[in-house]
Amino acid sequence: MKVGIIGFGRIGKVHAESLIRYGKDIEIKAISDPFISEESKNWAKANGIKDIYTDYDKILTDKKIDIVLICAPTDKHFIISKEAILKGKHVFCEKPVSHNVKEILEIKKLLEKHDVLYQVGFNRRFDKNFAALKEKVQSGVIGDLNILKITSRDPAPPPISYVKVSGGIFLDMTIHDFDMARYVSGEEVEEVFAFGGVMVDEEIGKAGDIDTAIISLKFKSGVLAVIDNSRKAVYGYDQRVEAFGSKGQILARNELEDTTVIATEDGILSRNPKYFFLERYMQAYTEEIKQFVEAIKTKSKTVCGIDDGLKPVLIGLAAKKSIEENRPVKISEIEKEYGI
Amino acid sequence: MKVGIIGFGRIGKVHAESLIRYGKDIEIKAISDPFISEESKNWAKANGIKDIYTDYDKILTDKKIDIVLICAPTDKHFIISKEAILKGKHVFCEKPVSHNVKEILEIKKLLEKHDVLYQVGFNRRFDKNFAALKEKVQSGVIGDLNILKITSRDPAPPPISYVKVSGGIFLDMTIHDFDMARYVSGEEVEEVFAFGGVMVDEEIGKAGDIDTAIISLKFKSGVLAVIDNSRKAVYGYDQRVEAFGSKGQILARNELEDTTVIATEDGILSRNPKYFFLERYMQAYTEEIKQFVEAIKTKSKTVCGIDDGLKPVLIGLAAKKSIEENRPVKISEIEKEYGI
Amino acid sequence: MKVGIIGFGRIGKVHAESLIRYGKDIEIKAISDPFISEESKNWAKANGIKDIYTDYDKILTDKKIDIVLICAPTDKHFIISKEAILKGKHVFCEKPVSHNVKEILEIKKLLEKHDVLYQVGFNRRFDKNFAALKEKVQSGVIGDLNILKITSRDPAPPPISYVKVSGGIFLDMTIHDFDMARYVSGEEVEEVFAFGGVMVDEEIGKAGDIDTAIISLKFKSGVLAVIDNSRKAVYGYDQRVEAFGSKGQILARNELEDTTVIATEDGILSRNPKYFFLERYMQAYTEEIKQFVEAIKTKSKTVCGIDDGLKPVLIGLAAKKSIEENRPVKISEIEKEYGI
Amino acid sequence: MKVGIIGFGRIGKVHAESLIRYGKDIEIKAISDPFISEESKNWAKANGIKDIYTDYDKILTDKKIDIVLICAPTDKHFIISKEAILKGKHVFCEKPVSHNVKEILEIKKLLEKHDVLYQVGFNRRFDKNFAALKEKVQSGVIGDLNILKITSRDPAPPPISYVKVSGGIFLDMTIHDFDMARYVSGEEVEEVFAFGGVMVDEEIGKAGDIDTAIISLKFKSGVLAVIDNSRKAVYGYDQRVEAFGSKGQILARNELEDTTVIATEDGILSRNPKYFFLERYMQAYTEEIKQFVEAIKTKSKTVCGIDDGLKPVLIGLAAKKSIEENRPVKISEIEKEYGI
Repeated sequence: MKVGIIGFGRIGKVHAESLIRYGKDIEIKAISDPFISEESKNWAKANGIKDIYTDYDKILTDKKIDIVLICAPTDKHFIISKEAILKGKHVFCEKPVSHNVKEILEIKKLLEKHDVLYQVGFNRRFDKNFAALKEKVQSGVIGDLNILKITSRDPAPPPISYVKVSGGIFLDMTIHDFDMARYVSGEEVEEVFAFGGVMVDEEIGKAGDIDTAIISLKFKSGVLAVIDNSRKAVYGYDQRVEAFGSKGQILARNELEDTTVIATEDGILSRNPKYFFLERYMQAYTEEIKQFVEAIKTKSKTVCGIDDGLKPVLIGLAAKKSIEENRPVKISEIEKEYGI
Repeated sequence: MKVGIIGFGRIGKVHAESLIRYGKDIEIKAISDPFISEESKNWAKANGIKDIYTDYDKILTDKKIDIVLICAPTDKHFIISKEAILKGKHVFCEKPVSHNVKEILEIKKLLEKHDVLYQVGFNRRFDKNFAALKEKVQSGVIGDLNILKITSRDPAPPPISYVKVSGGIFLDMTIHDFDMARYVSGEEVEEVFAFGGVMVDEEIGKAGDIDTAIISLKFKSGVLAVIDNSRKAVYGYDQRVEAFGSKGQILARNELEDTTVIATEDGILSRNPKYFFLERYMQAYTEEIKQFVEAIKTKSKTVCGIDDGLKPVLIGLAAKKSIEENRPVKISEIEKEYGI
Repeated sequence: MKVGIIGFGRIGKVHAESLIRYGKDIEIKAISDPFISEESKNWAKANGIKDIYTDYDKILTDKKIDIVLICAPTDKHFIISKEAILKGKHVFCEKPVSHNVKEILEIKKLLEKHDVLYQVGFNRRFDKNFAALKEKVQSGVIGDLNILKITSRDPAPPPISYVKVSGGIFLDMTIHDFDMARYVSGEEVEEVFAFGGVMVDEEIGKAGDIDTAIISLKFKSGVLAVIDNSRKAVYGYDQRVEAFGSKGQILARNELEDTTVIATEDGILSRNPKYFFLERYMQAYTEEIKQFVEAIKTKSKTVCGIDDGLKPVLIGLAAKKSIEENRPVKISEIEKEYGI
Repeated sequence: MKVGIIGFGRIGKVHAESLIRYGKDIEIKAISDPFISEESKNWAKANGIKDIYTDYDKILTDKKIDIVLICAPTDKHFIISKEAILKGKHVFCEKPVSHNVKEILEIKKLLEKHDVLYQVGFNRRFDKNFAALKEKVQSGVIGDLNILKITSRDPAPPPISYVKVSGGIFLDMTIHDFDMARYVSGEEVEEVFAFGGVMVDEEIGKAGDIDTAIISLKFKSGVLAVIDNSRKAVYGYDQRVEAFGSKGQILARNELEDTTVIATEDGILSRNPKYFFLERYMQAYTEEIKQFVEAIKTKSKTVCGIDDGLKPVLIGLAAKKSIEENRPVKISEIEKEYGI
């Protein structure tokens, strides 16, 4: 099978590496990026990638290519997804598919008519720690799930230019946590309430966004969840999940930079959580692509399909509305707006 | 100085022990309890307590007694507090002063006119771990406080008979956490939103209460907090606080039964959190009484006065209303009801 | 039963407190100390202790006194033990009974002829963490014991004046660890090898002692153990045990000052081990006296008898010889010297 | 530069993968293995390795090859090293160079005359945790080093057939720990004492070896160290280092399988240390090859040269003699035997 990668920035290259290492029968035939660096070009050539384009259309029209990875900026995800599906390619699309529910619904409809696989890049599902936690929750180790707590804090805020086009914290950052909540619980969210504020950087507020939030979720089953977000945790990328149930509790703790611990007069000092998301989630990115390739090979469903791309956006919109109107918002309200 | 203890059940005895050990110039002159056990009587005698009454009035009318500890059932706290203040005694009253805001306000007014000290028994403030955390937060170690997270789960629910008269989970159990939120932050809560459910025992639901909740708080400063409660954590009494700020984070973890760790083929097993509240908070109960006695000796303010008894009740009532009306509730709404 | 405490310094008072709190039918009738402070006198009076002597003989000749606690300086342990046994008192004697094997043997012989109980104050046996570890080892949780590792480091060295009369590090400090090795394993040591050095304070070297050591032990069963000692661990009193066996491993970790953890840019800082031995072992001291009293009440053997006082001294002497002659030394060599 | 890999079993392939991923200007031109599997052949072809031989001589005589990795069985390390050096290749040789001191000395002499780099495969030096610990020790974070403790236990013993040719536990297993002791301290060992036994498998004893040991080391500076070894830790590969000094202590803890922790009625269960050495040390193997390639590129000394290959063997022989003669053995005794 042959792969084309559209968008060859940081994350495009990460996926390329995973394919090279684990995709035994997979060949990366082409990459495209309008702003590809010389270094990336050289890297691609050294790794036997033949076609290097600026225009992604050349990948979509290459009939030898079966699989497309969409690693372009978010505002291109929808249109490339659409065109790729229409050309009969299997698609892996970085999250989010779109901030626009209508567009996601359009992709969803297209997928019903085209026999291609579609996977959305919620990479954290593939992190070994969260996957182990989910597996234990699902196998009943903690009995009935009662409370789910997700701590999700970035080490530093993105540039304001990015914040302005990010869709807001809930669609940009919390969307991963909404996915995690659905993934771990195996259930659907019914209602959302959020408190938020601007505590990290006033510029974020001026850009119309918040940078700190506590979001409470009520699942259809009655299970409760809470997510807390901050755009800036000075001690590193803080990514924890805690699942509490009738028979116990499971935590997935942070991965630390190394295992050393220093004891001096001042106390006992261990290392911070890994700071950089690529370092923290490298194993997950690799696993994500492995499972995507595996799904294609075995013609089975992808682990994270278009519905998994849609639902967190609906929750995010509900959270946004909750902040705007200072009230709990039902997901069904949002669904109604879009005729779902 | 001489002390009388009204109510000599489990907690009355705990305070008696603390007084014996740490109250150098303090003499416990009398105890009263309508249902005192023979064992408790003998214990009291062996420890040199002279007067053992069934009727607390005898303590209040004993002019040699300067200080009264109210360890009777909650529904007697108000009336005994009132009478004791009128008789000019310094009062330590177990939490809550009352579930009835009007009664607390009445005590508050009385205290303005009487030159006696009044301390409410929010014992967790005196736990060395939480006290250390608060001290660090207040001294700026984590910069500006952004998010406060309190995990508070009992090892097992109380009897249904107790649940029925408890005032509901928010006034009975979360009230400690509301106090902790105020104590750690040094700030006042402005608004509350709660999601809740019955997951531990259906009987609790039939009694009109919930047993599981996530309560979000917004402080006047904009700081956010979240509390999660369960009436049943099978692994023990789960009492953690996490304070996140612009320069870092402080946790107060659980105290474990012992420090042993067993590694076998099955994993690495450490001990559970201390299960029983008296075991967990014994040091705090002792410290609480020490500081109360110290406040009397130095004629300074008590660490936890009548306002500290009032505020958590207002927050609890707001949380209750939030559940009933499924909306965020401002503390000022509750205050308005009571003309505060 | 009535108790007399001989020596009323820090540790004498600790035991007095334990007796007051837990010795329900026990009365401390007398204390003696040639250098008793005014404060201690007042404390004793306030706690109902009637007789306060400078001369311990008055305690030994008081026929109403059944039990004697010897908390005098080490060089008096032997003579007081001897006289107390001859007067028919039950004896609790702080460790070590003596640095002189012949004296311990004399006490041992005396005890064979007198129907009194004798307990040596190896307090660490009563620490809940080490007791739990031992219980697990003995009950087979880790299968057959293979390796025992004891870390034992003081927070700061004693004064040089004390070092000079201490009997050397092995009889003064490691003796506790030798006891721990015997206690946890339930076995007897056969052979010892030690490497040592002066790394903390040259004055200790000038006083003819060492301050840092690694001591290897071989038990009669073939089980191996290693102890490492330092007179100065700047981060606090480091007291850990690790038992490794065919089915797993058990650790007893340090107890920390509190459970707080601070995460900042610099790392994740938790608190140091408790620094002061009384703070670290307060629970153990209390338990020690409880079990001594219990043994007397139930007329059963004490947990830590005269043989438990003797054996660590023999191991200590073997360790000393090992350093002096730079070779492994069998305990039987030492025993032969003393005709044991 | 072009590389040939001699011996293409498990570890040969590991190094090949590292070279492919990180050796940008490096080409693996050839591999040789008399027993190469079909799978390995296919893997090699898929990764662009042109020459696949059974006879390593073809690699040594290929003038285009600059670098040789020796991953053959231990008994071939010497002869291949010798021939490769004579042919002017840079050599990376898996540990140990030889169990025979004379052979190592011969390699050492050869290297003095040939301008090639030689690196010995003590992979643990490149583990990020141990490297961080060493860096902290060397930079004075814990002041003067006093005590070094190394825990090194395999998850399961090797086959008896391997034990018989392994050179004994000290040359096969502890040799890594001797290297670690030298690496962390930056000092040379002066004297060794070991206690050992057969506790894991009687067959190991019948094969003339031991499977459990405690080895004490005295460095020339006086610093003390202790290593404890077991061939079987059922809970996984236990690899810890603890460095204690005048200003504090540094630990390098185990890496766990994942970060999850499960709390139930039975306690708090975290995951075991990584079990398999390749999983545990994969990052180290990669780093090792990166640094080797870097040393060649920059024409600097290798991190782990022939002396680093020699010294641990001398210590191992001293430890062996210590067990045989039950006495401490000086390294100088061993050196004298070999005229060093």
